Amino acid sequence: MATVGLARLLVTAQANVTWLTGFAGSAGAALVEPDGVTLVTDQRYADESQALASGTGLRVVLVSQTYDETLAALILAGEDPIGFEAGHLTVHRQRWLRGTLEAAGWASDRLQPTLNLIEAGRIIKDAWEIGRLREAGRRISAVAIGVLADLSPGMREQDVAQAIEAGLRRSGSTRPAFDTIVASGPRSALPHGRASDRLLQDGDLVVLDFGGVYGGYCVDLTRTAELGILSVEAGRVHAAVAEAQEAAIAAIAPGVPAAEVDRAARDVLARHGLADRFVHGTGHGLGLDVHEAPRLGPARPAVHPPLSGTVSLPEVLAAGMVVTVEPGVYIPGWGGIRIEDDLLVTERGAERLTTVPVALGRS
Amino acid sequence: MATVGLARLLVTAQANVTWLTGFAGSAGAALVEPDGVTLVTDQRYADESQALASGTGLRVVLVSQTYDETLAALILAGEDPIGFEAGHLTVHRQRWLRGTLEAAGWASDRLQPTLNLIEAGRIIKDAWEIGRLREAGRRISAVAIGVLADLSPGMREQDVAQAIEAGLRRSGSTRPAFDTIVASGPRSALPHGRASDRLLQDGDLVVLDFGGVYGGYCVDLTRTAELGILSVEAGRVHAAVAEAQEAAIAAIAPGVPAAEVDRAARDVLARHGLADRFVHGTGHGLGLDVHEAPRLGPARPAVHPPLSGTVSLPEVLAAGMVVTVEPGVYIPGWGGIRIEDDLLVTERGAERLTTVPVALGRS
Repeated sequence: MATVGLARLLVTAQANVTWLTGFAGSAGAALVEPDGVTLVTDQRYADESQALASGTGLRVVLVSQTYDETLAALILAGEDPIGFEAGHLTVHRQRWLRGTLEAAGWASDRLQPTLNLIEAGRIIKDAWEIGRLREAGRRISAVAIGVLADLSPGMREQDVAQAIEAGLRRSGSTRPAFDTIVASGPRSALPHGRASDRLLQDGDLVVLDFGGVYGGYCVDLTRTAELGILSVEAGRVHAAVAEAQEAAIAAIAPGVPAAEVDRAARDVLARHGLADRFVHGTGHGLGLDVHEAPRLGPARPAVHPPLSGTVSLPEVLAAGMVVTVEPGVYIPGWGGIRIEDDLLVTERGAERLTTVPVALGRS
Repeated sequence: MATVGLARLLVTAQANVTWLTGFAGSAGAALVEPDGVTLVTDQRYADESQALASGTGLRVVLVSQTYDETLAALILAGEDPIGFEAGHLTVHRQRWLRGTLEAAGWASDRLQPTLNLIEAGRIIKDAWEIGRLREAGRRISAVAIGVLADLSPGMREQDVAQAIEAGLRRSGSTRPAFDTIVASGPRSALPHGRASDRLLQDGDLVVLDFGGVYGGYCVDLTRTAELGILSVEAGRVHAAVAEAQEAAIAAIAPGVPAAEVDRAARDVLARHGLADRFVHGTGHGLGLDVHEAPRLGPARPAVHPPLSGTVSLPEVLAAGMVVTVEPGVYIPGWGGIRIEDDLLVTERGAERLTTVPVALGRS
């Protein structure tokens, strides 16, 4: 906040509120001020929020009418200008807040847009967060191994998704991190093929891509299996994807641009004539959100004109970042293969948080 | 759009994109223009979006670099000013879009905020949507009956959540509509007590509140059970909550202000001396989002100054709306009881979409 010259910040992005306060309810905001942090939530979370406050410096205010009325009153109770999260607050809420503050005598420039102030802190995980993510990685790996062992023709994709989600629950996950992907046969060519009522068949490629949330932290894993006798073509593509993933993981180290990790995967697939079949980025950050910084993808031209109040997120890897590496190849009418693991960037390179055999066959 | 004087609209809220185009992927936007609708999505959804387009008038554009660059190019390809969804677009995206359009020679007022243009259509469900919601209501009811029958001391709350989520999957739900609530014993006093590792015990109140998504449409159901011998106090509170729910359902009819349905529930609980224990609204709309208009809650002062581009959402019930009715009572240290059903507003009153015995005991 000092770097952008603000003494106060209104935080409305849920993961940022959680990171600052520990509060994990479905609705809440935080006000960061020089003398401490105020959590604003509603009556439904009265008990949880009071429990968080006791013994810490956290103040708790419960909303009486609407969140924005309470937030405006708290903002007006202080003296300093305040930043808001322009990457999260909607235009409508900002207009209402600005109008309310102006009606109380504020100059309109005292409510200032900011970008990435909290995200810049979240991108590097501390020891406690790394501990959670390691444990989450161990648990989702065990779920994957069990589900892969049980895959067989005749199951519906939805049955497989149910087995995955039950396994996640049993291992302590509070929810799927995203809609579970089970994409079999020709559907495996869909990079985001959510589980349907299709029956698995002998000869199918089956892409399983699922995520769990353990103690608030997200992990994300993909394996592709082939049912029945392994085909030469699938074996060839699978080996190329595995090689691309290994190359990307080998490229991970502090100081390496995120785009280079993406290029490492892309170069391998290009050598195998599969460059056009890899239609997404190589990976993304993991943490309180399942998609967060850094992005492992091709470098993009800077499209956002710099704003005052903006903190740049690093595009170069650093120890303590946690990322997925998930190259994939998709051939319409034939099928697709993706392999995804979660990695912690360490001082020496990368530590695998997920450990599941990569083999296409299952026995 | 005619009512706010706009020929074009940029739609970025996912449920609104789905409602307009049928596209159900995790990322997409729509551009509504006089000559048709364009769906903007990315390579991951190339196949699904082309399948939607074939045979309909829908145009599909796949993003090359970023969504906002593609959207800006499409906006600049047309002549007319364009509205955006101020209740969804973030301040950051709006500033970037505005800056990009201005750099191409647009006057800044040609990008105009709007509110509720699509939501005003979504609030009344058509026959096809009502068919889906009826089927979804039947299915979630069957799941609830099965889970309630199996509840017993010694289960962990997370086991119960797993059984609920497996049941939803088996019955065709693609995902939980929100984090499954299983709140037992003293935790039942938490209105939003997500399943923990607590073991159910004899004498516990157990609140089960869960939602499913069937063919894109959300349903939401709550029952409270008491394990073991029923207590007089729980029976008394449960009867009051059930009476409040019945009164609210009886109040539902076209032309009735939503706030009156809330008041009907609140009045009953007040008569039982429980007014202070009902700390949330009586219900909310259901559809492509699990929380949408209308809100069944106390009337609020109009806090948003009217903006040009705003369509008001009705605060009076009309046939075709679908709502939850979910009064609850929460007594810290003792426990809580909530009962929730989903209802279709009909010409004559309310049709129940969920039908599960309300009794506190389970046998």
